[in-house]
Amino acid sequence: MLATGFPSGRAPRRLAPIERPRARPGCLVSAEERAALVDHRPGAVRREDRRTLLAVDLGLALVEGEDGRLPTVFEVQVPRPRDEVVPPLRHFRLEHLDQCLQFLHTHPEAPLASPRYHPPPSLPPGGCPNGPPSLEWPVRGGEGLLAASKSIIGNYFEDLTPGREIVHAVPRTVTEGDQALYIALTANRYPLACDAEFARRLGFRRELVDDLLVFHTVFGKSVPDVSLNAVANLGYADVRFGVPVYPGDTITASTKVLGWRESSAGDTGVTWVHTVGENQHGDEVLSFIRWVLMDKRDKATNSGVDDAPKTPAAVDAKHLHIPAELDLSRFDSAVTGGRAWWEDYEPGERIHHVEGVAIEEAEHQMAARLYQNIARAHFNAHALKGSRFGKRVIYGGHIISMARALSFNGLENVVRILAFNGGTHSNPTFAGDTVFAWTDVLERIDLGRPDCGALRLRLVGVKNSDPRTEEQPFKVADDQGRERYHPNVVLDLDYTVLIPRRR
Amino acid sequence: MLATGFPSGRAPRRLAPIERPRARPGCLVSAEERAALVDHRPGAVRREDRRTLLAVDLGLALVEGEDGRLPTVFEVQVPRPRDEVVPPLRHFRLEHLDQCLQFLHTHPEAPLASPRYHPPPSLPPGGCPNGPPSLEWPVRGGEGLLAASKSIIGNYFEDLTPGREIVHAVPRTVTEGDQALYIALTANRYPLACDAEFARRLGFRRELVDDLLVFHTVFGKSVPDVSLNAVANLGYADVRFGVPVYPGDTITASTKVLGWRESSAGDTGVTWVHTVGENQHGDEVLSFIRWVLMDKRDKATNSGVDDAPKTPAAVDAKHLHIPAELDLSRFDSAVTGGRAWWEDYEPGERIHHVEGVAIEEAEHQMAARLYQNIARAHFNAHALKGSRFGKRVIYGGHIISMARALSFNGLENVVRILAFNGGTHSNPTFAGDTVFAWTDVLERIDLGRPDCGALRLRLVGVKNSDPRTEEQPFKVADDQGRERYHPNVVLDLDYTVLIPRRR
Amino acid sequence: MLATGFPSGRAPRRLAPIERPRARPGCLVSAEERAALVDHRPGAVRREDRRTLLAVDLGLALVEGEDGRLPTVFEVQVPRPRDEVVPPLRHFRLEHLDQCLQFLHTHPEAPLASPRYHPPPSLPPGGCPNGPPSLEWPVRGGEGLLAASKSIIGNYFEDLTPGREIVHAVPRTVTEGDQALYIALTANRYPLACDAEFARRLGFRRELVDDLLVFHTVFGKSVPDVSLNAVANLGYADVRFGVPVYPGDTITASTKVLGWRESSAGDTGVTWVHTVGENQHGDEVLSFIRWVLMDKRDKATNSGVDDAPKTPAAVDAKHLHIPAELDLSRFDSAVTGGRAWWEDYEPGERIHHVEGVAIEEAEHQMAARLYQNIARAHFNAHALKGSRFGKRVIYGGHIISMARALSFNGLENVVRILAFNGGTHSNPTFAGDTVFAWTDVLERIDLGRPDCGALRLRLVGVKNSDPRTEEQPFKVADDQGRERYHPNVVLDLDYTVLIPRRR
Repeated sequence: MLATGFPSGRAPRRLAPIERPRARPGCLVSAEERAALVDHRPGAVRREDRRTLLAVDLGLALVEGEDGRLPTVFEVQVPRPRDEVVPPLRHFRLEHLDQCLQFLHTHPEAPLASPRYHPPPSLPPGGCPNGPPSLEWPVRGGEGLLAASKSIIGNYFEDLTPGREIVHAVPRTVTEGDQALYIALTANRYPLACDAEFARRLGFRRELVDDLLVFHTVFGKSVPDVSLNAVANLGYADVRFGVPVYPGDTITASTKVLGWRESSAGDTGVTWVHTVGENQHGDEVLSFIRWVLMDKRDKATNSGVDDAPKTPAAVDAKHLHIPAELDLSRFDSAVTGGRAWWEDYEPGERIHHVEGVAIEEAEHQMAARLYQNIARAHFNAHALKGSRFGKRVIYGGHIISMARALSFNGLENVVRILAFNGGTHSNPTFAGDTVFAWTDVLERIDLGRPDCGALRLRLVGVKNSDPRTEEQPFKVADDQGRERYHPNVVLDLDYTVLIPRRR
Repeated sequence: MLATGFPSGRAPRRLAPIERPRARPGCLVSAEERAALVDHRPGAVRREDRRTLLAVDLGLALVEGEDGRLPTVFEVQVPRPRDEVVPPLRHFRLEHLDQCLQFLHTHPEAPLASPRYHPPPSLPPGGCPNGPPSLEWPVRGGEGLLAASKSIIGNYFEDLTPGREIVHAVPRTVTEGDQALYIALTANRYPLACDAEFARRLGFRRELVDDLLVFHTVFGKSVPDVSLNAVANLGYADVRFGVPVYPGDTITASTKVLGWRESSAGDTGVTWVHTVGENQHGDEVLSFIRWVLMDKRDKATNSGVDDAPKTPAAVDAKHLHIPAELDLSRFDSAVTGGRAWWEDYEPGERIHHVEGVAIEEAEHQMAARLYQNIARAHFNAHALKGSRFGKRVIYGGHIISMARALSFNGLENVVRILAFNGGTHSNPTFAGDTVFAWTDVLERIDLGRPDCGALRLRLVGVKNSDPRTEEQPFKVADDQGRERYHPNVVLDLDYTVLIPRRR
Repeated sequence: MLATGFPSGRAPRRLAPIERPRARPGCLVSAEERAALVDHRPGAVRREDRRTLLAVDLGLALVEGEDGRLPTVFEVQVPRPRDEVVPPLRHFRLEHLDQCLQFLHTHPEAPLASPRYHPPPSLPPGGCPNGPPSLEWPVRGGEGLLAASKSIIGNYFEDLTPGREIVHAVPRTVTEGDQALYIALTANRYPLACDAEFARRLGFRRELVDDLLVFHTVFGKSVPDVSLNAVANLGYADVRFGVPVYPGDTITASTKVLGWRESSAGDTGVTWVHTVGENQHGDEVLSFIRWVLMDKRDKATNSGVDDAPKTPAAVDAKHLHIPAELDLSRFDSAVTGGRAWWEDYEPGERIHHVEGVAIEEAEHQMAARLYQNIARAHFNAHALKGSRFGKRVIYGGHIISMARALSFNGLENVVRILAFNGGTHSNPTFAGDTVFAWTDVLERIDLGRPDCGALRLRLVGVKNSDPRTEEQPFKVADDQGRERYHPNVVLDLDYTVLIPRRR
C-alpha cells in the first residue's frame, strides 16, 4: 500500500503518437490531435506536452492554448443510448492533471501512454470552435492516472459557461421521514406540512412537503455541479414555487447557466444560473435564479467576460402559482391559531416573531445532509481551520428555514410560499448563534380571487440580538460611508405568500 | 428600512369618539364603551385613555380598571361560521399596547384613530361581569399599531383564568418519520413502537406511535398557550393514556384551566390546567393535569387568588384504558427479550437500568422541536445567558423519554403506559449531562383479567452518577432540615404500565 | 425511599433444602442439586454456599466449580408454548449475584430461601456435561433478590460459549423515517436508497433501505447480547448482503457463537460470532462473522480455551447475492451522475473521494440509537471519563457509513453492496474529527452476466488529514518495527459491490 503520492503501483506506459495537423489556438481539439505535435523523444517532452499526453492517455479533449500556455482540458463524454437523456459534459479537474504533471516532473523517466489507447474510429473533422465537444469516445480506464478523474472536485468559474445545461444527479424521493426531520430541525409549525386533516380540508390529498424543504432539496441537487467551489452564495431572484409536492414524490433538478462576470482582479467571478425542480410527472415544483461568487481555476488569466443577465426585481404576479386543488372554503383558523387575514396586514407593518433559537453544528450539518447538499463550507472542519472564518459556516438555506419557522408566530394563516422576489444571506451564521426574525409587510397583492390574496413580505433574520427588545440596526454605514447590513443581520428575504381573505 | 422603534411609516389617525355611559370598574366592556368617556381634545388625552383609544383602534375589549389604573385589554373574537369549532379568545399582549403607548407618549402629536374604524352594528347591552366577552367584532387591520399584536408572546398568570378553555393551534399528524426520530433521540426499544409484526400479533393494525411521543406531542401543542412564560413545570397528575395512536393519525389538543394560586409575594402564581389530546376521530388519546409556576404580568398587584383544584394521588384503576384490540394470546417474549411477567415484579423491588446516556444540545433541541414545543428555555441561548442557569434547560419530557428508554432493560415485557399518577422534574438537566435510571416497583394492580395486569412503578432519573455502582441518595435534607431531592435526581415519575401475566 | 444498597424492604426468606447427590465438578447441575450439599445451620453457610442458595432462590442452574471455587451460574429457561420460537438462554449476571452476596455477608442474619420456592416437577436425570441446560423451570419472582437480575449487564467472554445460539430481542421495522435519518446523518446519495423512480426502473417495488442501514440494524440488535461489554470490535469477515430490504420490512437477528480464544494473560479473550438478519418472510437480508475482544468476568482464571474458527479471506463469488428482480436494462447514469462502468475500474487505481465531514457527538449518538445499538462506549460520557480515551468513541459502523457516503463521488454507478470481505476499525474516531475517504480498486470480478460485474474495493477512512492533498501514510512501523495503521487511518474495509457493465 502506497502511503502518498501517485496512487497506482503500476507505471503508466508510453503513448503511440499520432500525426495530425497543428490545431488552432483557442479551438477545441482532441488530445490526440494535440499529441501529434509533441516531440516524444526521451527528455524532449515539455511540461505542456506532458499535459497533452496525459490528456490523451485519459481520453480527454483539449482547448488549445496559446504558445507556451497550458491547454484547458475537457473530459469526453461517454457513449449513451440514443433514447436516454444525455447529461452535459462535466469538466475534467485540471487540478488533478496538474498533480499528475507534478509527479511526472519529478519522475521524468515515467512513460506516459497506455497500451489500452486506441485511436477513436472517427475523429471530428477539425476541432470545433465553440462549446463542448461532440466527440463520443469512451472514458478510458485508469491505469493509475485516471483515478482522480472518477471523482469530481466541482466546477470553477471557467467551467460554467453561459448556455451550459446540467441535469443534476440523484433525484430525491421526499418522504414523511424527511418532513419529520425538517420539523425537528426547524420547529416548523405551518400546518399544511404537518396536519394531514387540515391539508385534506383544503383540497389536497394529504399534508404537503414544506415549501422550503422542496427548495432545499432542489438547491442541494445543484450544489455538486454549481456551487461546490463557490466562495459565497450571493443572491436569489425570480424564485417560483410550483405544483405542491407530496410525501413520496420524486424531485429532479437541472440548471442552465445564464451568465457570468469576471471580477476586475480576475481571481473570481460571479455566475448566474437558473435551476428548475420537477416532480416524477415532469411538473415544475420550483424554479429559481441564483448567483454565486466562484473561484477561478486559473486566477492569473483575466478573460474580462461580462455577460450578466437581467433578473426581475420581483416575481411577476402572473407567475405566482396557486395550486389548482386549493379550496379555502373550509379553511379553519382554529387549526392555525391565526387571527389575521390578508386584509389585516398593512404595508409598513412590522411583526416581531418573538422567539430565538440557537443552532448547533450537528443540526445544520444534518439539515444540509438531509438535502444532500455537500458544500464543504458546512462540513469540512479540517479544511476550514485555514479558512477566512476558521470554522464551518451554516448553510444559508437553513437560516431561511429557521426564520420562516419563527415567522409562524404572527403569520399563522399563511398557506404557502408563492415566490422569493430576492434574497441575501447578508452575513454568515455559525454554530452557537441564536437566530431571531422579524417580518416587514411590503405589499398586499390582489390576486383577483375572493378567497385569498398574496402578501409580499420582508423576512429578516438576526443573530445574537433580540430585535424586539434590543437596539438592532438593519443597515449601517461602513468606513467608506457605504450602507451595509449590520453584522447581526444574517438574512434579508423578500418573498411572497398566499393567505386567505377574511370571510 | 427603519432600524428600530415604531414599525410603520404611516401615522395612525384620529378616532371618531362615541358617546357612551361610564362602565363599571372591573367589568368587561367594549373599548368603544370606554372610549366614549375620553376627552379627545388635543393635549387632553391621558395615558390610560390613550390605551383605551388604541384598544378601540385595534378592535379590542377591555376590563375596566379602577380610577387611575390602566384597564386590562382583551382581544375580541373574529366572526366564524356557526358550524366551525370556535377557539376561545386569545388575550392581547398588553406589553405590545404599552410599546405603542410609549411611542405615543414621545409623539403626542400622533393622531390615534383609524379611518377604517366603524362602530359595531350591535353593542352588547351593558358589558358582562365575568368571563370572556361574547362580542363578535372583526379584528381590525393594523395601520401600523396592530403589528405587534399579530405575534403572541404567551400568557401570563393573570391570563389563564379558571374555566378558560383553549383549543391549541396546529394539530399534528404523527408519522413513521417522527417515530424514527423518536428512536434516534432516545434509543427507545419497546417493540410495540418499532416492530410492526409484533404489533400485528397483538391485535393492532401496525406498530403504534410510542406512548411518550403522543404525550410530548399533546404537551407541545399546549406550550404556546400555557407555558411559554412558565417559570417551571411543577408537576403532573391524572395522566391517562387513551386509544392507541397509529402513524398517520392526527392529534389535536385543548386545555381547560382548572385553578390558580397566587404566590404570597404576588410576583408569580401556580396555574393548574387539564389538557386533552384527541385523534382525528375525536377519540381521546391522552389527558393530563399539570401545574405550572407562571410569571405574573403585573407583579406589583397581589390579587390573592387561591383556587387550587384537588388532584388525585393516582389514576383510578377504572380509568386505565386497555386497548380493545389488544390480544396477548400470541405475545412472544422472544421478541421483547423479557423474562419477567406481571407476577414476577414485587413491590419494594428495585431495578437498575444499567446504562447511562449523555445528552447534547442538538439532541434535546431536536426532540422539543419534533414536538413543536417552542418553550424558550430550551432554545433561546441568547436570552438565557442572563437567566438563573445561564444556559438552555433540557425539556423535562425528554428526560422522561430517556429514562423510559433506559428502563427497557428490566421491563422488556411491558406493553404500554396506562397512566402517570404523578411526576416531578426534580432538578434541571443540561447538555453534557449523562442520565441514568432505576425503577422501584410500587404496586401490582390486578386488572381482573387473566392475560395481563398493571404495575405501578416509580421511574427515577439521575444525572452524572451511576446509581448502580455509586452512592446516590434519592432525597437529602437541606439547611432547614427539609427533605429535598438530591441535586442529581432529575426525575421522579410515578406511573402505571400494562404487562402480560405469566401463562 | 432507600438511597443506596439493597433494594427491597422485605427480607428474603430461608430455603427449604433438598437432599441430592454431589454433582461432578465442571458439570451443569441445578442449583437445587448443589444446594443439597450445603450446611444450612446458622453461621455455617460459606460464601460459595450462599451463592448456591441464592441461585436456588432465583431458579437458576449452576456449573459446579472446583473445591473452593465459586460455581458459574446459569439462568433457567422460562417455559414456552411448543409452537413458538424458543430463544436460547441468557446467562445470568454473576455480578448481580455477587452484589447480593455482599449484602448477605454484611447481614448474616438474613434468611435466604423464598416460600415461593417449589421443587421443579421433574429434575433432569443427572445434570448435563455440555451446553445449555434443558431444564424448563419458571423464573422466580423477585422477593428483592431477583431485582437486579431483571436487567441485563451484557455477556462476558465466559458467557459466549461456542455453539451457543441467541435470538436477539426487538425486531425492527425499518421505515422511510429511518431512511431519512440515515441520509441526514451520512449525506448518503446512492440513488437506490433515495430515488423511488430509479429503483422502480431497476425492477424494485420502490426505493430500498440502504445496505448499510440494514447492516447497522442487524448489528445493533446483536449488541446487547454480544458486545455490550466488548473492549473492541476487532473485525468482520464473510459479510453477505442478501435480499433487498424495503421500507416497512421488519428485520430479526440471531447470532451463533463460532469460537473463542482466551488471551495469554487470561484477562480478556476474542470471541467469533456469526450473525444473521432476516426479514418478516424469513429471507436472509444479511449475514456476517465478526470477532470481538471481550472482557472476562473472572480475570484471575485462565482456562486456555483456544478454538478460533477459520474465516474466509473473501466472500466466495457464489455467495454474492444479485437480487432476482434487478433489471439493469433501464439503468440511467443521468440519475447517478456516474461516468464510469465496471470495465473502467482498474485494479491498482485509487479514487480520492474529495470531501471531508466533521462528526458531532449528537450525530453519532443519534446514528447508534437509530440502530438501537446501546453499546455504552458511544453514550455513557459519565462512565467513560475514567476510560482509556476519557470520552465517547464513535460507533465504527457510523464511520463505515460516512466513508461509504463520501465514496459516492467516484463510484456513482455502484448499485449495491454485495459483501464485506474483511474490515477493521483501525483507530477510534471521536466527536470533532473530520473524516475523509479513498477507495483502492482491488479486483474486477466477472459475474458471468452481460449486464453487470462486481468490484472488490478497499475503502479507507482517514481522520483529520485530507489524503488527497496532505501526506498521509496508510501504515507505519511502530517502535518494534511492526507494521501498524497510521493513527489517522480509522477504517480499512475490503468490500465488494455490484456495478453495471458498459453497454
